[in-house]
Amino acid sequence: MNVKINENFDNLSENYLFSEINKRITKYKEENKAADIIKLGIGDVTLPLDKTVIDALIKASNEMGNKETFRGYPPEYGYDFMKEAVKKYYKRFNVELDLDSIFISDGAKSDLGNIVDIFGNNNIYIPNPVYPVYLDSNLMSGRNINFINGSKDNNFLPLPTSDIKKGSIIYLCSPNNPTGSCYKYDELKKWVDFALNNDSLIIYDSAYESFISSDEYPHSIYEIEGAKSCAIEICSFSKQAGFTGLRCGFTIIPLEIVCSNHQINKLWKRRQATKFNGVSYPVQRAAEAALTDNGIKECMDNIKYYMVNAKMLSELFDEKNIYYTGGKNSPYIWFKCPNDMKSWEFFDYLLKNANVVGTPGAGFGTFGEGYFRITSFNTHEKTKEAVERLRKLL
Amino acid sequence: MNVKINENFDNLSENYLFSEINKRITKYKEENKAADIIKLGIGDVTLPLDKTVIDALIKASNEMGNKETFRGYPPEYGYDFMKEAVKKYYKRFNVELDLDSIFISDGAKSDLGNIVDIFGNNNIYIPNPVYPVYLDSNLMSGRNINFINGSKDNNFLPLPTSDIKKGSIIYLCSPNNPTGSCYKYDELKKWVDFALNNDSLIIYDSAYESFISSDEYPHSIYEIEGAKSCAIEICSFSKQAGFTGLRCGFTIIPLEIVCSNHQINKLWKRRQATKFNGVSYPVQRAAEAALTDNGIKECMDNIKYYMVNAKMLSELFDEKNIYYTGGKNSPYIWFKCPNDMKSWEFFDYLLKNANVVGTPGAGFGTFGEGYFRITSFNTHEKTKEAVERLRKLL
Repeated sequence: MNVKINENFDNLSENYLFSEINKRITKYKEENKAADIIKLGIGDVTLPLDKTVIDALIKASNEMGNKETFRGYPPEYGYDFMKEAVKKYYKRFNVELDLDSIFISDGAKSDLGNIVDIFGNNNIYIPNPVYPVYLDSNLMSGRNINFINGSKDNNFLPLPTSDIKKGSIIYLCSPNNPTGSCYKYDELKKWVDFALNNDSLIIYDSAYESFISSDEYPHSIYEIEGAKSCAIEICSFSKQAGFTGLRCGFTIIPLEIVCSNHQINKLWKRRQATKFNGVSYPVQRAAEAALTDNGIKECMDNIKYYMVNAKMLSELFDEKNIYYTGGKNSPYIWFKCPNDMKSWEFFDYLLKNANVVGTPGAGFGTFGEGYFRITSFNTHEKTKEAVERLRKLL
Repeated sequence: MNVKINENFDNLSENYLFSEINKRITKYKEENKAADIIKLGIGDVTLPLDKTVIDALIKASNEMGNKETFRGYPPEYGYDFMKEAVKKYYKRFNVELDLDSIFISDGAKSDLGNIVDIFGNNNIYIPNPVYPVYLDSNLMSGRNINFINGSKDNNFLPLPTSDIKKGSIIYLCSPNNPTGSCYKYDELKKWVDFALNNDSLIIYDSAYESFISSDEYPHSIYEIEGAKSCAIEICSFSKQAGFTGLRCGFTIIPLEIVCSNHQINKLWKRRQATKFNGVSYPVQRAAEAALTDNGIKECMDNIKYYMVNAKMLSELFDEKNIYYTGGKNSPYIWFKCPNDMKSWEFFDYLLKNANVVGTPGAGFGTFGEGYFRITSFNTHEKTKEAVERLRKLL
């Protein structure tokens, strides 16, 4: 029929990264039935939810079965108990949030994708390489996309340059997916100052903040002075508390941000009230529990487990003197493929010669070509075994 | 700052219906502290979730706490077990669905709001009065909006007219919110035939289908021949199974629908894979349970409870010979305000003289002016008491 479609969809490239990986693994397994393949490509948590979280989830589920405690439609922007929990969590970073600036959602991906709804046709600046949602959601809206490129020269931490146009929207992700690179206070300050001085807005993805263990790195962009006037922060319980299967995240839009004489917070309220109906009550209770002192302690135990794996992996690259980023305040290790191999070439080489699977860096942007991502989400045992195999191969 | 916003947001009117209602109730209560107010404005379910649903929710929650049964990211389009459950449910209506045409989501509101993403600048036709999300989501995208008007003349069931342009997108909601009107087979066939003959697409909101008890009305638009080539159906577990607080719904986009040489199903897949990360695993298990034979039986018991209230209310309007729609295959009763009162005038009159609260019809569109919506979601006792008060007043 003649009904018009959104023609911007034609500008999207096929999202084939993980399907292509699976295709190659399947083919290899068919040809090598005895192969004991270790997956270091996992971008998902693997440890189960903590007791504090499960207890809260089940308690709230039971409430939904009783007339006295049943709850219907949740508030579109999140229950106050949940917003209070986020507000309290941010006090750990000496950040004071307005309750009204916090929006609870079903995950950072939804918010990162949907945030484009409230903006007009601006110049968009996106790191390269990076998580593909920023690019694809802006392509769908027909935006003018520019890249801020990461490389060995800047340790995959691009800083503002004079060619970035005024009045732009700039995406930042720190700790970065896929490179694991993390902005220090003074580096992030450069971005905030740039935004303030150049009439620009930062969309800051802090989904991996809880992997930061060093004092040198901010957990929230609001730790930087002035950020509340120029930055939206989007975060998730997926990696922090293992909520990838439960679905909960949040977005902070300070009341201070005004674009073209409109309070952005108010536009997002209108967007969410129209196109979203809030997060499942038991899931919000589970997320609230994850932010209690006990909850945080248990979640951090899981993160420490993953970081033992990250340490094993990064020590190998230190030993082999191979250039890499991440592995210290991030679950990701991003390294240069040996012998100047291309990303997919190295994928096949690693699969064939070590039966280890990772993720080709080229899948995250053109500046990822020649690089490779491995993750710390497998078990200690499997990770140790993978390290041994890599030690022999590299 | 100069960052451009989506200027279409300026065309939205304030979403003040329910806040204005609450404001007037609060004011009345302050001035009449002893008033025993009965709320028939409730658009949310009030009975708790059924045992079958709660058991499944808790079982799945426990699975998330064990390493062996933990699940991470859900599939973006829903777990196969859940899609199979929807497929099986539709067999009750003799509708055979492709598994690939079913998308599980966090609710019908999200899908109804987000579906605009995949379309271009088409003429949009929206019933008046109707659920406000169709209008607001299309206004946000700057679409050219037209109304298909309901009135006493067509029993609030507008049918196709020759002035509807070819190549349009037409929203239908049956049973309708707020009017409770429901298209019969031959009436819905007129819409499907119109869409097929006029190159148009129907977006069919069937959120209230489980309130249909008469054989005269289709539960799904796919019961009409040809609909799979021209209709998207969006449904919800909110009213059927009381999931307003759990959040689950689904959208069906048949593989047959092709707009401007693009398979719409494929565009929605790309949209959801980019801007959505699937529905919480325990919630999907709960929804699956709601669609088992036991689950359906328990859910129907709740619906029967509400329909006893609807019967009490509609019998009063029969007795008083006041024009109304709904109340039989819908939880809503939509009636003409007595003495040609306007909607808000009658709201105040009813609050003052019967201490009963409902929803002014004018809040759902200009053609709702002079009408009023009451619902069956209160208890038997309160509804009975409200009927007695209305009997004296009307």
